[in-house]
Amino acid sequence: MENFVFYNPTKLVFGKNTVEKIGEYLRKDKIKKILLLAGGGSIKKNGVYEKVVRSLMDNSIEKVEIWGIRPNPVLSKVYEAIETAKKEKIDAILAVGGGSVIDSAKAVAAGVLYDGDVWDFYIGKARPKEAIPLYTILTLSATGTEMNGNSVVTKEETLEKYSFSSIHVYPKVSIVDPEVQFSLPQNQIVNGSVDAISHVMEYYFDGAKRTELVDRIDESIILTLMETTEALLNDPKDYEARANFALSTTLALNGISGMGHRGGDWSSHAIEHALSALNPEVAHGAGLAVIFPAWMKYVYRKDPYKFKRFGRIIFRMKNSTPEKAIESLRNWYKKIGAPITLKELGFKKEDIETLTEIASKMAPMGKLKKLEREDIRKILEIAFEGE
Amino acid sequence: MENFVFYNPTKLVFGKNTVEKIGEYLRKDKIKKILLLAGGGSIKKNGVYEKVVRSLMDNSIEKVEIWGIRPNPVLSKVYEAIETAKKEKIDAILAVGGGSVIDSAKAVAAGVLYDGDVWDFYIGKARPKEAIPLYTILTLSATGTEMNGNSVVTKEETLEKYSFSSIHVYPKVSIVDPEVQFSLPQNQIVNGSVDAISHVMEYYFDGAKRTELVDRIDESIILTLMETTEALLNDPKDYEARANFALSTTLALNGISGMGHRGGDWSSHAIEHALSALNPEVAHGAGLAVIFPAWMKYVYRKDPYKFKRFGRIIFRMKNSTPEKAIESLRNWYKKIGAPITLKELGFKKEDIETLTEIASKMAPMGKLKKLEREDIRKILEIAFEGE
Repeated sequence: MENFVFYNPTKLVFGKNTVEKIGEYLRKDKIKKILLLAGGGSIKKNGVYEKVVRSLMDNSIEKVEIWGIRPNPVLSKVYEAIETAKKEKIDAILAVGGGSVIDSAKAVAAGVLYDGDVWDFYIGKARPKEAIPLYTILTLSATGTEMNGNSVVTKEETLEKYSFSSIHVYPKVSIVDPEVQFSLPQNQIVNGSVDAISHVMEYYFDGAKRTELVDRIDESIILTLMETTEALLNDPKDYEARANFALSTTLALNGISGMGHRGGDWSSHAIEHALSALNPEVAHGAGLAVIFPAWMKYVYRKDPYKFKRFGRIIFRMKNSTPEKAIESLRNWYKKIGAPITLKELGFKKEDIETLTEIASKMAPMGKLKKLEREDIRKILEIAFEGE
Repeated sequence: MENFVFYNPTKLVFGKNTVEKIGEYLRKDKIKKILLLAGGGSIKKNGVYEKVVRSLMDNSIEKVEIWGIRPNPVLSKVYEAIETAKKEKIDAILAVGGGSVIDSAKAVAAGVLYDGDVWDFYIGKARPKEAIPLYTILTLSATGTEMNGNSVVTKEETLEKYSFSSIHVYPKVSIVDPEVQFSLPQNQIVNGSVDAISHVMEYYFDGAKRTELVDRIDESIILTLMETTEALLNDPKDYEARANFALSTTLALNGISGMGHRGGDWSSHAIEHALSALNPEVAHGAGLAVIFPAWMKYVYRKDPYKFKRFGRIIFRMKNSTPEKAIESLRNWYKKIGAPITLKELGFKKEDIETLTEIASKMAPMGKLKKLEREDIRKILEIAFEGE
């Protein structure tokens, strides 16, 4: 087990009828005026917006709204929100939405107090030294952003999709009410599931040794995600499945799944970011369903025992092998309706070159196996048709 | 799954050579003078004290010391430390030791800023509104106190062993260096193991339904504790086993093991407290090894499925039954050298009356089954000879 520091100051408020408590939490913290960030309008359809507005009013909290943060959020929108936040002299940010809205909100929270270009955080030119407080209401369980300090944003002009991580942008309070997710379309359940499973696997397969407890916890999260994904595809209003799914996605990336690990591998995520940078229509989860198994096929010889264990525990195989374990994962992704090849995502053979180019900007990458440009190309080739 | 709020602001610093970092963490927080609380002197033998003193000196931090906090810590010692803390105008408390030292330190941290009697917190007459910052260096993994807001103390005169819980006394930083535990005697490994397993079981068996994810996490913690306990009894210097054991005890009671639960049952703990109140020589873990299985025998009909599952997962039984599961737990306790009857702990048949008397002050108690005085007596009777 590796040395580690775990520090996660987010207050997680989880369960039924919790959205309407947001005003109280803000008032307790003496917040008077917030910038409300939101996406395309689904929170007006599912009733979340109305509850938030009422709760803010009941607690005499002023608000300014910015709408239109889209999946695979873009830097230009972050700039717009920072401008508004500065002009309106807000005390805090309230992000109401999924990963894209919350990730953007983190950039705004730190960007408001930073004199330079917020993109500096993403390219590693600067690190946030402070941020205004961030509160979130999660409406789509997937990325785990509600309980960590990570933010991923794409710069449109250069197709760069980068991330930063800072203790200052952990949400102060995150509200997760599984009931508000009853109305999500099936593909968002699938994408969220693949995303969260991938987060756990980035740690699980990072080459750390003797992480017995956390291996078991990681397997617990993956098994529960698989079980509840199937239950939700069958009945999207199964509250208990929804709650277990939601909690699993949060714990997949709040630090626990990586305790004692080597920080995670993260190659699959880096390569996937190239996919959605080139084609923003590609959902992050869908991209990961294609890339992660391809990465596994390419690297499993570095730690065959772990891949074998994965098959034994996750797919209950008596005679597990790394190859069979990886194949089972792809079959399960197929079963729940996730794409498993670049082809299915609409990429052409000739895109491999461009994708290699974009992803290689981050090379060398990875912990289990250090990947250079040529390794990345080979993984993309495996991903193309899945062979 | 039940609604819940999870908030745990303790920074956990885990791994080799971390004790010597304490001075830096204190300095970063601008602490100038601390009250160092310690137990009987084992930290002088294992080198921890020397490392702490050097680290404090290197960072120009003044200290006042109070020694002699004993297992099953007592209120009089807490009073003494509060007095000293007030007189010496310290900025923070540094607890170096096991659960008793850290639990006492929590009382001191809140007591220093409270005008009334600190015992008020334990009897529920008052709740802490603030506390001075607490830092800990854990030298005995067992109670989980390094990452929660709980404190248990005994008032000698009345044999009352009560607890309080407050967000204000969560340690700011807790350092867990598994290597410093290499020199612990075997019975402390055993007691720590039983204690941590019991913490998880209090939640696991509290009657909450559809807690799939947390059930799996709880089972992960118990399985790892059992595996590493056996490894450590065999080789106390097995670092990896020690690290997995230590992390398991922390996660057993830092809020995660109880997410979505009903707050835990806690009857076994309440009844055990009567044992150590009557005879302070009884280690908390030893008492729990006797009481918990007796409680299980008395209540399992309230949730037979869960007890059956426990046998299937923890003891890998193909044809698990509640009775066989409970018997397996007792057998395992026996195997690692824990007592399993009140008799073995030196209690006489006639003590059952007194123990019932003491424990019943907390009645009614419990979540899975609400226990009244007569229920408590029956559990103690089962515990007497284990039948």
